[in-house]
Amino acid sequence: MNLISSQLKAELPLRWQKIQQMLTLENADACLISTNVNIFYAAGQILGGFVYIPREGDPWFFIRRPIGLTDRHLVYIRKVEQIPAILKEKGVVLPKTLMLEDEIPYGEWVRYEAAFTGARCVAGTTLLREVRSVKTDYEVLQMKDSARLQSEAYKQFPSLYRQGMTDHDYTVEMERCMRQLGSLGMFRVFGSTMEAAQASVLAGSNAEAASPYDFALGGNGMHPSLPIGHNGVKLEEGMAVMVDFGGNFNGYVSDMTRVFSIGKLTQRAYDAHQVSLEIQQVLAENGKPGAVCEDLYITSLQLAEKYGFADCYMGLSQQAKFVGHGVGLVVNELPVLCGKNRVELQPNMIIALEPKFIISGVGAVGTENTYVVRDNGMEKITIAPEEIIDIS
Amino acid sequence: MNLISSQLKAELPLRWQKIQQMLTLENADACLISTNVNIFYAAGQILGGFVYIPREGDPWFFIRRPIGLTDRHLVYIRKVEQIPAILKEKGVVLPKTLMLEDEIPYGEWVRYEAAFTGARCVAGTTLLREVRSVKTDYEVLQMKDSARLQSEAYKQFPSLYRQGMTDHDYTVEMERCMRQLGSLGMFRVFGSTMEAAQASVLAGSNAEAASPYDFALGGNGMHPSLPIGHNGVKLEEGMAVMVDFGGNFNGYVSDMTRVFSIGKLTQRAYDAHQVSLEIQQVLAENGKPGAVCEDLYITSLQLAEKYGFADCYMGLSQQAKFVGHGVGLVVNELPVLCGKNRVELQPNMIIALEPKFIISGVGAVGTENTYVVRDNGMEKITIAPEEIIDIS
Repeated sequence: MNLISSQLKAELPLRWQKIQQMLTLENADACLISTNVNIFYAAGQILGGFVYIPREGDPWFFIRRPIGLTDRHLVYIRKVEQIPAILKEKGVVLPKTLMLEDEIPYGEWVRYEAAFTGARCVAGTTLLREVRSVKTDYEVLQMKDSARLQSEAYKQFPSLYRQGMTDHDYTVEMERCMRQLGSLGMFRVFGSTMEAAQASVLAGSNAEAASPYDFALGGNGMHPSLPIGHNGVKLEEGMAVMVDFGGNFNGYVSDMTRVFSIGKLTQRAYDAHQVSLEIQQVLAENGKPGAVCEDLYITSLQLAEKYGFADCYMGLSQQAKFVGHGVGLVVNELPVLCGKNRVELQPNMIIALEPKFIISGVGAVGTENTYVVRDNGMEKITIAPEEIIDIS
Repeated sequence: MNLISSQLKAELPLRWQKIQQMLTLENADACLISTNVNIFYAAGQILGGFVYIPREGDPWFFIRRPIGLTDRHLVYIRKVEQIPAILKEKGVVLPKTLMLEDEIPYGEWVRYEAAFTGARCVAGTTLLREVRSVKTDYEVLQMKDSARLQSEAYKQFPSLYRQGMTDHDYTVEMERCMRQLGSLGMFRVFGSTMEAAQASVLAGSNAEAASPYDFALGGNGMHPSLPIGHNGVKLEEGMAVMVDFGGNFNGYVSDMTRVFSIGKLTQRAYDAHQVSLEIQQVLAENGKPGAVCEDLYITSLQLAEKYGFADCYMGLSQQAKFVGHGVGLVVNELPVLCGKNRVELQPNMIIALEPKFIISGVGAVGTENTYVVRDNGMEKITIAPEEIIDIS
């Protein structure tokens, strides 16, 4: 493929091997990838088409668009139905068991299944997400690049506030700052009903609004067609302003939250914020390889309980039941730090920890940072002051 | 549902009736809707859950999130498997033929099908898109509101240019302007592999870059993980700058393109731009109820051919094979004005016409406007100067 760097060319075989190990464990002969996230993972660029990864040997790229690419294993096609005949022609044995991504539209699955006559098609979405949950060293560097730029933006955010602004005005200025530093202006989310613009900014009691989405917190949004985040409220004395951007500067999404205040908040808000920082520190210390996701979540619940903030932990009327999640090519990668999840952390998993509290009448407080799981605990890669900064 | 206006409450039954007429034609007993776009269409707001529309009678809303809503036909559920028993309990006869959206993930379809034991599940995505393609009068007003605000932004765009800017710098300022006027900061696209930030801005020869996406034009983008639109090039004398934003101010996406220039362009660029304006005028005049999509597309091809611009119409190395498309809750609604599409226009369809040309070494020229199909032709609702404005 002629668009990608030599560094990335050397990296891709590592990813193919991880997928091939998974295919071997699952007794699948090949997988056929067609979603943008997995295509970017396997090909290092977005292609309109398919990546076919056999259990052994190099992948094949069957693409419709863009024109003009060349590669030893790249073949232009018009439609998926051509693929089996081309594979045969190239001397590749057709798969008996073919893994597809079960997140693709139903209509697509049925079509791909019909194209590979006789193959048993099995679901691969979760397995591929598990593969992606442990990053290569190259991917860790990509995440660190995104996190560094996002951190830079967060340091500038306090200076962008002007008296009289609404939460929308302020959000627009922060978005601009992110974009000026190179944010790509959107980030990918897993789940067909999950959606957001660049950030969730929650000021005052809008933080209490329950969301139809499965994000940590809600907010009414600016319109019922996109009910998430800021709602146009004027920023006023005594409000907490929670700023949660997805930081996508290179396809890898770091996740980070900071809280600013307009003047002074109630003592209860500051106390809850301190609990959040403590939860985060404890989880980061405990978050070594082998640590169990559920155990980390329960630890966070116990700390919230111990300090008397269990009733407003991760929401008020509607409480989110997790304290962290993987990040990577989507903002909500695996694993999820939630109840009943006995998955163990592994080195090079990248996790966003986000213990948050809603203080009625004040807003949301707490913090979120992105961490790399290392042998001695979690390494924080989003770096900016964590106390509540009074921006007024 | 307690979040929506009384105006919208009066509007929704019109939409339910349109869906129910379609169900009757298709011999389906009900449809179960779970995508955000169709939920917003049927419920007037985004809900985490399902809208169940029987062929006769009012819809049922089965929702997980947000908490706190009340309605005569609203029931909170934890999972889809509860729905059939609840319907039965409410005296609703379970469907023999159930329409699902075939755009939902394969895994979801299989699960819903299993939940409605014994029901035959049929594909509804295209049928629901057809229903949505003809707007109600209320929806036309929503589209006009979005178009009016988007037009306002486009009038301001020339004043935002500063010498020395890259296409990225300029895009960031235009995004900010759109947001200040109330843009929601993202727009919805149909198709699981289609994606974009708020706009596609193409300057100079970046307009020639072929895209992996099925948008009209390409552009390399700022990073291979999002290869669409501006690529960071410095704006220089002689460049055309094509600006194509999705205008989403209320859930309804108007679509609009204007071309600016840095200094003077080649005569060929101005000539092609005039051809674009003429194509658009002819199609708008011909675009009456009963006009056939394919015929309009062929008319555009013939005009491009007549003036000697067929080789650069809708792309250079990779040419898009359409001249317009429906717009509405997604930027790419039905119908598509392309070859082999014998669909006839109907009153209150809303169509974006976008005849565009790529002039090698200069950039993209042409125009795009959003129109409502009226008895006497198409009514333009995106209003701003259409000539190429020199912003230098």
